[in-house]
Amino acid sequence: MNCNILIINARLLENPGSGAITAQGFVAVKGRMISQIGQMGNLPKDFKADKIIDAAGCLVMPGLVNGHCHAAMTLFRGLADDLPLMTWLNGHIFPAEAKYVSKDMVYWCSKLAAAEMILSGTTTVADGYFFEEEAARAFREIGIRAVAAQGIIDFPAPGVPDPAGNIEAAGNYIAAIPADDLVTPALFCHSLYTCSPRTIQVAKQLADECSCKLFIHVAETRAEVKNHYKQYGITPIRHLQKLNILDKNTVCVHCVWLDAAEIAILAKTGCGVITCPESNMKLAAGVAPLADMLAAGVTVGIGTDGCASNNDLDLLGEMASLAKLHKVTSLEPTSMPAGTCLRLAGKEGARALGFAGIGSLRPGMQADIITIDLNQPHLTPFYNPDILVYAASGADVKSSIIGGQLVLENRRLLTIDLEETMAKVRSLARQLA
Amino acid sequence: MNCNILIINARLLENPGSGAITAQGFVAVKGRMISQIGQMGNLPKDFKADKIIDAAGCLVMPGLVNGHCHAAMTLFRGLADDLPLMTWLNGHIFPAEAKYVSKDMVYWCSKLAAAEMILSGTTTVADGYFFEEEAARAFREIGIRAVAAQGIIDFPAPGVPDPAGNIEAAGNYIAAIPADDLVTPALFCHSLYTCSPRTIQVAKQLADECSCKLFIHVAETRAEVKNHYKQYGITPIRHLQKLNILDKNTVCVHCVWLDAAEIAILAKTGCGVITCPESNMKLAAGVAPLADMLAAGVTVGIGTDGCASNNDLDLLGEMASLAKLHKVTSLEPTSMPAGTCLRLAGKEGARALGFAGIGSLRPGMQADIITIDLNQPHLTPFYNPDILVYAASGADVKSSIIGGQLVLENRRLLTIDLEETMAKVRSLARQLA
Repeated sequence: MNCNILIINARLLENPGSGAITAQGFVAVKGRMISQIGQMGNLPKDFKADKIIDAAGCLVMPGLVNGHCHAAMTLFRGLADDLPLMTWLNGHIFPAEAKYVSKDMVYWCSKLAAAEMILSGTTTVADGYFFEEEAARAFREIGIRAVAAQGIIDFPAPGVPDPAGNIEAAGNYIAAIPADDLVTPALFCHSLYTCSPRTIQVAKQLADECSCKLFIHVAETRAEVKNHYKQYGITPIRHLQKLNILDKNTVCVHCVWLDAAEIAILAKTGCGVITCPESNMKLAAGVAPLADMLAAGVTVGIGTDGCASNNDLDLLGEMASLAKLHKVTSLEPTSMPAGTCLRLAGKEGARALGFAGIGSLRPGMQADIITIDLNQPHLTPFYNPDILVYAASGADVKSSIIGGQLVLENRRLLTIDLEETMAKVRSLARQLA
Repeated sequence: MNCNILIINARLLENPGSGAITAQGFVAVKGRMISQIGQMGNLPKDFKADKIIDAAGCLVMPGLVNGHCHAAMTLFRGLADDLPLMTWLNGHIFPAEAKYVSKDMVYWCSKLAAAEMILSGTTTVADGYFFEEEAARAFREIGIRAVAAQGIIDFPAPGVPDPAGNIEAAGNYIAAIPADDLVTPALFCHSLYTCSPRTIQVAKQLADECSCKLFIHVAETRAEVKNHYKQYGITPIRHLQKLNILDKNTVCVHCVWLDAAEIAILAKTGCGVITCPESNMKLAAGVAPLADMLAAGVTVGIGTDGCASNNDLDLLGEMASLAKLHKVTSLEPTSMPAGTCLRLAGKEGARALGFAGIGSLRPGMQADIITIDLNQPHLTPFYNPDILVYAASGADVKSSIIGGQLVLENRRLLTIDLEETMAKVRSLARQLA
């Protein structure tokens, strides 16, 4: 057996959410894929590997999928907390974006975000922002798998001063992204309150022509839904359906304020939904009807949202918040069990983003693999993988492989000068403070 | 200036919750106390220190106060998640406790808990369990400040097979704890549904005679309050007031289901309240009326509760959950601002436990000090201390001093053989699994 990377002596969580664990296993990576997996006793005697990772004391599992992020917004982390929503947005975030978003800012701040995500177990991220080609460049350089979506908005935006050119700019963005396994281009219409129905329809047409995903924030706050109804006489999800926007290649983000008929629409059209529990909590947006969505068969993933509203990008923490939030608000301790959270932050999130080959350890799947250091007080004892949801945090991630490339080893990032990146972001932050 | 430990080049958060930061400061520790504090420019030229800690890149702040824990329950971490409350308690936790709680278990599992707490920034813990003298021994050995409360229950309990002897056993426990600055003995009546009114009254009398605190779980679930009313014709808090239990030396834990008059009782009697947001979330107990309690002037601290119901002991994560839970359930993003969370997890929690000299960095205060490593992607940029609540986790704690003793340095525990402790707990866990 020849392989590039061989992980040995690992507890294997091959299918997160199934609960099953292989006590002493190995995973072989060849090129970008997992080539073989099994129990240590069955490791071929003749194996040859360029790199061996001894994962004794670690849990080895598929990398996590962050279904929604605005990576560049690391610059605004903690800039304006605990404020009323409109003060936060109109008094702080929008003005800061108008003044400080540049190509340079998007590149460095997205790089910082990618570093944070890799350090906390994310191997795939769906991102949406402006100057997204710079985010794509940062993701490609550090080696994180990404769906990178160019922002579309009917207002002057960073890099798109005239909104009349926003679709053309988006088309140019998609054309300029090189054919690459790691970064997939997409479009991101900000919302129904910042994009006209016409803009969203044209964006969807472009997305379809380019076979790419269209993301949109929908039904995040009660006020948004009320205002939309007042303006159009129809609720946002119904409106999107009427505009023919909803299908398997559309991803609706947030979906907090939905009625039963809208949940049925999301299920029937097959569009993806990304829930962002910590962002919805911190901004007091509300609690998404997740149990109902899952019961209806909607494909759901989890997102961290951007750092202005979360304020970190730790999907392990996000799973814990998801599980606990839904239990307490339904007064039902069996709601959102750990296994469900693990599936949403993995395989189901990948499915929402259109990736079939991500979310389990199996030959032929993408080699997106993380190791979790279980040899720590807060992860002792280890009875079952639920501990990942209820006690682990991003800092427990030890190593990460993305598309066959080792990007993190013993918590050292191998594909980025981290000090340089932090220094650049701090220097940008000093202009704001 | 002579001192034992000198922390230099630090960002100082002297009064968490105030927002004010000293950019480049020093803290001098002499014996158990903080002896001097100031800006680096004012550091006396003639200083002598046994140990210098260079905290460049770190935030230095008072250690955190965990107002409620069952340390020994680390053994049951993740044993039974996502279950209906009564199945969890009667089908798993109570049987496991009946079978596996021993002196040895309490000693080693409390030691593991203390290690986890120190590693995540806690310097003071209020604990309650059985064989609490073994917990006290573990706390004293590792060097964590503790209020260690012996459990009282009207059923056969570990170490107290005949409940008729539970008060006597508690008295013996208090008498046996040596006069010691670090561990303060206390009593812990489990609840109004496991202790009779008479037991609670006698326990309170004993607590008063010994000048120690009495802890009790109250109004954790709606069912508990309903059942209590059905049995006694009065709600739990009113009942405790009628029994003369509530005063400055009583600490009520949970207090989720209260009406306005009960909040007024808590404020008027001056008793402490400990809120355990993550435990209340995970067990779907409910959301405590915290904003109303604080508005009424109730003294409130934060607790992690035990590992069977949380499942970790990370107060930084607990603050994040507290802040976000209360925002989303009130749909009010200004609720529970970061500064309030920092005060509850520090000075206010200490006040609820009866410690006046804890919770700020000031000469004459206890030298309970932690350093947080800010030089990390998820803590970059740093605009203000809110980042501790919304982005930091326990793993960011670098060093810890408790009562003048350095117990953690660069994430290495200095007062415990951590591998031995984890091995002991794993060995106990194997008997359960």
